[in-house]
Amino acid sequence: MPQFARLTALPSPVRSPSDSPWPLASTVSDRARGPLPHGSPGEVLLRAQQVLGEARVPATGVGESAALDLIAGLLAESGIDLSHPHAAAHLQPPVLQVAVDADALASASNASMDTYDSGPATLAIEQWVVKALAGLGGFGPEADGVLTPGGSISNLLAVLIARDSAAAAAGVDVRRNGLQGLDQPVVFCSELAHFSVQRACAALGLGEQAAITIASDEDFRMRTDVLEDELAKPGRTPVAVVATAGTTDYGSIDPIAEIAALARQYGAWMHVDAAYGFGALFSDQLAPLLAELPHADSVTLDLHKIGWQPAATSVLLVADRNRFASFGRSVDYLNPADDIDSGLDGLLGRSLQTTRRPDAVKVATTLRAYGRAGLGKMLDTCHELAHAAAARVVADSNLELLAPVTLTTVLFRVAGQGLEAAEVDGLQGEVRRRLLTSGRVLIGRTKLPARGGRPAAVALKLTLLNPNATASDIEDLLDQVVATGLDVRAESGEGAA
Amino acid sequence: MPQFARLTALPSPVRSPSDSPWPLASTVSDRARGPLPHGSPGEVLLRAQQVLGEARVPATGVGESAALDLIAGLLAESGIDLSHPHAAAHLQPPVLQVAVDADALASASNASMDTYDSGPATLAIEQWVVKALAGLGGFGPEADGVLTPGGSISNLLAVLIARDSAAAAAGVDVRRNGLQGLDQPVVFCSELAHFSVQRACAALGLGEQAAITIASDEDFRMRTDVLEDELAKPGRTPVAVVATAGTTDYGSIDPIAEIAALARQYGAWMHVDAAYGFGALFSDQLAPLLAELPHADSVTLDLHKIGWQPAATSVLLVADRNRFASFGRSVDYLNPADDIDSGLDGLLGRSLQTTRRPDAVKVATTLRAYGRAGLGKMLDTCHELAHAAAARVVADSNLELLAPVTLTTVLFRVAGQGLEAAEVDGLQGEVRRRLLTSGRVLIGRTKLPARGGRPAAVALKLTLLNPNATASDIEDLLDQVVATGLDVRAESGEGAA
Repeated sequence: MPQFARLTALPSPVRSPSDSPWPLASTVSDRARGPLPHGSPGEVLLRAQQVLGEARVPATGVGESAALDLIAGLLAESGIDLSHPHAAAHLQPPVLQVAVDADALASASNASMDTYDSGPATLAIEQWVVKALAGLGGFGPEADGVLTPGGSISNLLAVLIARDSAAAAAGVDVRRNGLQGLDQPVVFCSELAHFSVQRACAALGLGEQAAITIASDEDFRMRTDVLEDELAKPGRTPVAVVATAGTTDYGSIDPIAEIAALARQYGAWMHVDAAYGFGALFSDQLAPLLAELPHADSVTLDLHKIGWQPAATSVLLVADRNRFASFGRSVDYLNPADDIDSGLDGLLGRSLQTTRRPDAVKVATTLRAYGRAGLGKMLDTCHELAHAAAARVVADSNLELLAPVTLTTVLFRVAGQGLEAAEVDGLQGEVRRRLLTSGRVLIGRTKLPARGGRPAAVALKLTLLNPNATASDIEDLLDQVVATGLDVRAESGEGAA
Repeated sequence: MPQFARLTALPSPVRSPSDSPWPLASTVSDRARGPLPHGSPGEVLLRAQQVLGEARVPATGVGESAALDLIAGLLAESGIDLSHPHAAAHLQPPVLQVAVDADALASASNASMDTYDSGPATLAIEQWVVKALAGLGGFGPEADGVLTPGGSISNLLAVLIARDSAAAAAGVDVRRNGLQGLDQPVVFCSELAHFSVQRACAALGLGEQAAITIASDEDFRMRTDVLEDELAKPGRTPVAVVATAGTTDYGSIDPIAEIAALARQYGAWMHVDAAYGFGALFSDQLAPLLAELPHADSVTLDLHKIGWQPAATSVLLVADRNRFASFGRSVDYLNPADDIDSGLDGLLGRSLQTTRRPDAVKVATTLRAYGRAGLGKMLDTCHELAHAAAARVVADSNLELLAPVTLTTVLFRVAGQGLEAAEVDGLQGEVRRRLLTSGRVLIGRTKLPARGGRPAAVALKLTLLNPNATASDIEDLLDQVVATGLDVRAESGEGAA
């Protein structure tokens, strides 16, 4: 007689209170605790190490419950609480409870995406998810895609496909023979593109210098006049142009159609890194920002950003399914020809991975549960929060707004009247570290590029992805930023006095 | 007042019956169903597609429960059941319930490994896991490691580190300038090494031809005499030698110390792909097979093979932590210098990923729960099952054993008396496909390399990783293989008559 057990589940993940608009998961049950544990990083990590004890595989076990208690306790005490309304640092959202539940099913199945007989149902689920997302992006039936372990890997796969494609056009078989003979391959992206583009160039053997960064305009979008000049330079093989739809800091969206036209003119692959921005398509209000997406040859999208999925839930979409050929492979123990003839094929040929976790399970479940409308409403809420936060910053003489709101980020700084530029920069870093150490407020920081005579400057950043947070929560958060800024200035004033 | 909810959990993963020795998880509740759904791949996938319906993001949602019901139902009907005792195809084990529970905590936390403020506790947990595993492998305190999304990616990272290191020795800065100037880089591995080595060479811009495959001996181990001859050939830059500890099909373990000595002599990086074999270290009986592991510069190990973890739980160990330098990176929005000075660092510099799922949570929990002794006992049980299966094959005139048991795989074939070699090959493929289509038995296949005049031959394979399976389960399984073999032969005999 089968025994249907729940997850051992003591202690289990915590669900947000029933009066919250959206059911989010967390591992922190103490709602009075802030988004981070209190203490300096050194103190917090030492405490965690002490709980874990000596780093060696124990000779014997303590059993399931004791082990779960220990680890869950550690996550509750020293872990992050992204469901806290004062967690606003990174593109790392709180996650939907239903996605966590579905992800547990994925773990329990231990299905893999490489072959039919490593899990049939999940093959169908991933294909459904990929086609549904391609459709949402405006792509036709010849589009396809693959789930990957993160946006950085999606970008790497895109540049790899572009590299092999550009090399093939130049008569070089990179897959077989390597890069020898490929003349000065280059990849273009805006100066605000994600650093994973440079990382991909290094990993793929092109070198970081192959990534040519293009200046951005006042709206933080790639300057197509500069791109055109760069593309026209002789002696290079233009492998790809990487446009960004939703820069990490500004949410700004490069002029995709214009860039695509230039890319085609010069024979380069057109990739759009929409890791952050793709989710705009869930919202009627914001979807027009992504209207030009179908001009891309490939797209990176991360549903562990706007999408409220546990990481990793990245997708690489490709406008033409045949472009996955770079990854095709026949393996005796996985996909011999006679088995493929019988339909025993899988998705080995979409990826550099062999075993691949069925991350599509949680996506399919979430899309069913909430639909486009539900996810769109979550995004609209976060977008409105960002506008409210920006308005509050503008209204406060102790703060300065540094960029307009596009999606859900707010760039600002603590006012530094009377201080040198370097001191103002130092002030931002110090304010943020104090807030992090207090555990009560988790905000981000970044560096604004130089603009019209103004030098590059350290900025504070809110990345608002918690639809359960309210305008009043964000008021509180900014109050604490202001108060901490005043404290720091007062102390350094005293120190100087 | 916080509300502590269980996972929505209706329907939840299924736990193995309470009279089973080990608590394993599954998504298939019908214990009478076989490891796969009944039907041809085309039929099964069509049924799944029909359940999913049109591939588009629905306009509105159906709610959490209905969505979970649909997807869980699909996994139960059309998914794989690795906890079934007749599931014996791939290095894809059934998973421990406690690991699934812990993995749900990882999902709920949505912590990421890149920075302190993307999740402190999980940084400490990953470091604990990596050091504990390095210690189990026999490495000293200067060793370190990183969790990756799978063995193929671990191998890729290892070859990347080796490539950049060999290039640096030759005065070439690959990371900055690309491969230009690096003379004929080559990577050596046995002909039985995992195909991810070739894939890595292609991805990294070396080309598949850079992977020089070395013949294996009668025991399926790399021939060091051949390796030495190859290493001695002039005009090449030896980047790495990749030894395998636990080949996918045979479980055979290359002579690591001897290979390492040759690698050092020729200035090549010594990587050991112990994706499958590392788990032998949990067992007193089998651990001596891995005694030479500390000769490696780096090691791939997959706890989603021997380790009973949900995928992916791969680890790249590096004997010297400084060798991660290839991945170091300073990013304004993640790890600016003044933050690092304050201890706000993370593990961004260990990986090509940025957001990285805390897969170490389940590992730490499992190691605590079971200890080395528990996992060792599970492995010993599977190892004994493999010996029992091999004995049964030897005793049956309808079957032929093709290789001795090393770890937990059994290579054999249905006897093909009176048939041509190609017909015998075809018979194996047909038998396996019929069993898969019946849904009752899930076994693997592969191709044996040519040996001493005998041509390469298709083999059937059992990969035994279910410690709840009994010798009698494996008897049943083999009975079905034999009966199916006789059916196929009878039919083709009729067809020929």
